[in-house]
Amino acid sequence: MMHVNQKIALLRAAMSRHDIAAYLVPSADPHLSEYVADHWKSREWLSGFTGSAGILVVTQDHAGLWTDSRYFLQAETELAGTNISLQRQIIPHAPEHVSWLAENLPAGSTIGLDGRVFSLGQLRYLSRHTAGKGIDIDSGLDLITDIWNDRPPLPTSLVYELPAQYAGHDRPTKLQQIRANTAQQGATACLITTLDDIAWTLNIRAADVDFNPVCVSFLLVNTDSAHWFVPEGKVDESLEQRLQEDGIRCYPYYDIENWLRQLPPYETLLVDNSTINVQLFHAIPENQVVSGNNPAEALKAIKSDTEIHQLRSAMRKDGVALVRLLRWLEDTLPQTPVSEWDIAQKIAFFRNEQKEYTGESFPAIIGYQANGAIVHYRPTPENAAIVQPKGILLMDSGGQYLHGTTDITRTIALSTPDAEQIRANTAVLKGHIALAAAWFPEGTKGIQLDSLARMHLWREGKNYGHGTGHGVGYFLNVHEGPQGISPSPTNAKGLTPFQAGMVTSNEPGYYEPGNYGIRIENLVLCVEAAQTDSGRFLRFETITLCPIDLNLIDSNLLDKQEITWLNDYHQTVYHELSPFLSAEEQVWLSHACRKIV
Amino acid sequence: MMHVNQKIALLRAAMSRHDIAAYLVPSADPHLSEYVADHWKSREWLSGFTGSAGILVVTQDHAGLWTDSRYFLQAETELAGTNISLQRQIIPHAPEHVSWLAENLPAGSTIGLDGRVFSLGQLRYLSRHTAGKGIDIDSGLDLITDIWNDRPPLPTSLVYELPAQYAGHDRPTKLQQIRANTAQQGATACLITTLDDIAWTLNIRAADVDFNPVCVSFLLVNTDSAHWFVPEGKVDESLEQRLQEDGIRCYPYYDIENWLRQLPPYETLLVDNSTINVQLFHAIPENQVVSGNNPAEALKAIKSDTEIHQLRSAMRKDGVALVRLLRWLEDTLPQTPVSEWDIAQKIAFFRNEQKEYTGESFPAIIGYQANGAIVHYRPTPENAAIVQPKGILLMDSGGQYLHGTTDITRTIALSTPDAEQIRANTAVLKGHIALAAAWFPEGTKGIQLDSLARMHLWREGKNYGHGTGHGVGYFLNVHEGPQGISPSPTNAKGLTPFQAGMVTSNEPGYYEPGNYGIRIENLVLCVEAAQTDSGRFLRFETITLCPIDLNLIDSNLLDKQEITWLNDYHQTVYHELSPFLSAEEQVWLSHACRKIV
Repeated sequence: MMHVNQKIALLRAAMSRHDIAAYLVPSADPHLSEYVADHWKSREWLSGFTGSAGILVVTQDHAGLWTDSRYFLQAETELAGTNISLQRQIIPHAPEHVSWLAENLPAGSTIGLDGRVFSLGQLRYLSRHTAGKGIDIDSGLDLITDIWNDRPPLPTSLVYELPAQYAGHDRPTKLQQIRANTAQQGATACLITTLDDIAWTLNIRAADVDFNPVCVSFLLVNTDSAHWFVPEGKVDESLEQRLQEDGIRCYPYYDIENWLRQLPPYETLLVDNSTINVQLFHAIPENQVVSGNNPAEALKAIKSDTEIHQLRSAMRKDGVALVRLLRWLEDTLPQTPVSEWDIAQKIAFFRNEQKEYTGESFPAIIGYQANGAIVHYRPTPENAAIVQPKGILLMDSGGQYLHGTTDITRTIALSTPDAEQIRANTAVLKGHIALAAAWFPEGTKGIQLDSLARMHLWREGKNYGHGTGHGVGYFLNVHEGPQGISPSPTNAKGLTPFQAGMVTSNEPGYYEPGNYGIRIENLVLCVEAAQTDSGRFLRFETITLCPIDLNLIDSNLLDKQEITWLNDYHQTVYHELSPFLSAEEQVWLSHACRKIV
Repeated sequence: MMHVNQKIALLRAAMSRHDIAAYLVPSADPHLSEYVADHWKSREWLSGFTGSAGILVVTQDHAGLWTDSRYFLQAETELAGTNISLQRQIIPHAPEHVSWLAENLPAGSTIGLDGRVFSLGQLRYLSRHTAGKGIDIDSGLDLITDIWNDRPPLPTSLVYELPAQYAGHDRPTKLQQIRANTAQQGATACLITTLDDIAWTLNIRAADVDFNPVCVSFLLVNTDSAHWFVPEGKVDESLEQRLQEDGIRCYPYYDIENWLRQLPPYETLLVDNSTINVQLFHAIPENQVVSGNNPAEALKAIKSDTEIHQLRSAMRKDGVALVRLLRWLEDTLPQTPVSEWDIAQKIAFFRNEQKEYTGESFPAIIGYQANGAIVHYRPTPENAAIVQPKGILLMDSGGQYLHGTTDITRTIALSTPDAEQIRANTAVLKGHIALAAAWFPEGTKGIQLDSLARMHLWREGKNYGHGTGHGVGYFLNVHEGPQGISPSPTNAKGLTPFQAGMVTSNEPGYYEPGNYGIRIENLVLCVEAAQTDSGRFLRFETITLCPIDLNLIDSNLLDKQEITWLNDYHQTVYHELSPFLSAEEQVWLSHACRKIV
């Protein structure tokens, strides 16, 4: 194995040959996925830094790794002994390296990058901020493959079909919806590059990356057929046969680029600039591109009756697992302190007892005391804190079931909480309820609803630094679009109108740095509330089933409607979960769901 | 006087000579003002339709007037006997005539318009929607002046200086702020075309248009001087002298265009595309334009300490006038029914009793019963309904004082209201209070706060079809930017962060068509609430002083905080106004401001 410094030296030699002043190495795949397969972990291989977020920028006399605060300690350790300097980002995921490039590169120099792992949007951002300084970009430059001698192959997990009782609509129905939407956007065909959208469209799943049950591939849908570009060996003959019966033909993964170059002149191709990679975009004949919205994203967000029915069952399973976890914690902690990592494993263990569970939907965040205040904290076997029977514990976790994806946060008091903690948690709960109980007219967007979850915290001079809600997939990605609940007017998700059938998280929080963190998260289903003289109104139905810790609530700070909401919720939780629990568990749950006044 | 049909025939002859397929005649001035002087009322002159909103589109075989629902009746009457057809707009102020043009004009034809009375933004919108159909635009075509034989002259009202005790900052200070902001936006000079911004910058006022105490003019500010283009005869010598001492020179109004054409090559000129007119924009050498935000708009919105102090005094005067009006109504109605028009006159009468009052800030909306449900209703001597001592009366009015502009809506029950009316009014009040009492972090925008005012109505399947709040000028326009409280993500005002010192209306409502309307409007001043570990928080201080009708409120529907807010507000109203009232008036106000439980 080469040392990091040797790898960087090889890269610099290649940069010299191409007259490149700076080369960018992200951890991204050609689909701009949240989680990437080992084949594309080039930044990790080159730098030794294994965090999920970060970009490496190499010049002839400098190498810097940009990552955010949750990874500072890990990056310091992993970068020790290399000449790579840690660049501490202020805002996670923000392209802060771009201003560094604009300031440090001389006019007339060229930035190199591999356009297969950058989105068109990212490239245009980079170009807007460097072109004025006389800096060029060569976006077709893969300098990694040649030096990465032991690069892992393309992912090889077998593709399987989602059984009909779980899948909602069949493939022909979905393809027709995509074609209608594509035509509305003025194109004859559409290119889908995002893996969850392809899995949804084809009713298939796989295990190519962690946490997201997807298959690395591209899908091109035109008026009378569909073309699926997928690594060889992943689709068995019988599935290929069934796909073909639905008008879908399989091709080798890398054929997509040539296919685009040879697009028949009568086709116009709909692409989504925020997710299409630069190389594919440039392969499409210029006058045949229509930039718009990926049709599958909007269609997939509206869950079908089948999906909603199945998701409710997944919520019951998840609730049972969480109740067992909470009861186990209550029994265990006074005798045996356990680590945050142990708790994460135990949650997975209880979920795994449920049928059709396939794994976690994201790495569990178990944050004890001060760790709970670190929004993206994630325990590892090495760093996990030991949880004592005192203080505040925040637990954010989720499961993948063949019939639904879950995401839930509960914050519990392990001993008698102090008045300030109760006050903060009650303000978070009031915001959670305000959103959970709201009605709103059709057309309302997340940016309008975000403040309902914050107003009680604001009134006390408190706030939280993350969004209030994200879309959630159906046995797919735990984060999906197009909707979301966010205060930012530049976040497209917060500007997408809610529609009946969307599933979204409701997760206000409060974080006292160095002390404790609070978050209360349920998933909510958007449903019709009423049709009145003022129009059609929507509301949220809370579908996550798990008690909210009453020891952290001051009921004197709740108004009548809030108390009613909480009692009704706990009654539903008990009613839905108790048939699946033992007598002792029922007693525990009955107390956890006791009525407050 | 020519008949409308003769005028249209003359216009069509001119159109033929210029080979124009359609000519657009708006009611707009070169400053894109809300209210325009008679000199620019060309649509009114040509069509006979006198409503404040509407655009006339003339082709060789068709003439159509686009206006919105509040003017349908009036337009039908005024257009009778002409060949102009009424085009009923669905959305007020929306450019719905543009799609008509795109659909009805043949390819290869040309639309003509006078670029002096269209903004660059409007022209670009028109062009975007017609260019694809092969339709051209000639934006430099004034076909009206030649046929408008009795056109009124440019406005002639004398300009006066706002006395120093009212004016806040002096001219040199404001010019320096504008210069700093202009430089930040990358320009060496800026062109201010909006009349309220010019009045604010120069500390001058005039009476060139109704309701807005402004002077028709243009202002160009560069690094070491300022150039004011104002119709001759409006500025007396002593004012011109004082302006000159502050580095401001006066020029004839129409010189602006040539001045722009001859802009020195070292100047780059900041303009605001949403308000600059097409002709001026095209006069500026192309590579010397910087499109951005008008610096005076943002500066003017942050009221100075002097302005805030003076505005509080205007609020007391306005409150006294309103209390007298309410008391007069209560005494008069049982004996003598009065018309909506009479009430509008009476409000102006009571305001006029106050020192330094100069007139209404907009035409009063006095809406009795069903008229209250028509959002833009405005009584005239001819159409005004007779108000009986029963039902619901909505009164929205405002005054101009030398030291402040007011805008207030009160809705009162003239007899015992029914339960449904009380329920609706209480929901409106709850929303009004939620906004009035909110804290929010610095950087919060109106689109985020809008839902606080609506959530209680939404919960009952109710809503209102207008925004929740608009910025208000200081002895200037009752509607000003840059901030606002609106649910629309395409409304730039709702995306502007609030800042301490801004004055905004808080005016949720509810309208039952054919029945009654409710609106509760106060002006609020944005102030600092607290500096906490989560950052700086702002809040609103309600500065309008007038009781809210307790007969229309069900206190059982209010929570403790809402009751406290209302009692505190009424205590403030009584405390602030009673020193200026007679003993009998104090008794009346004391009852109107009684404490509820």
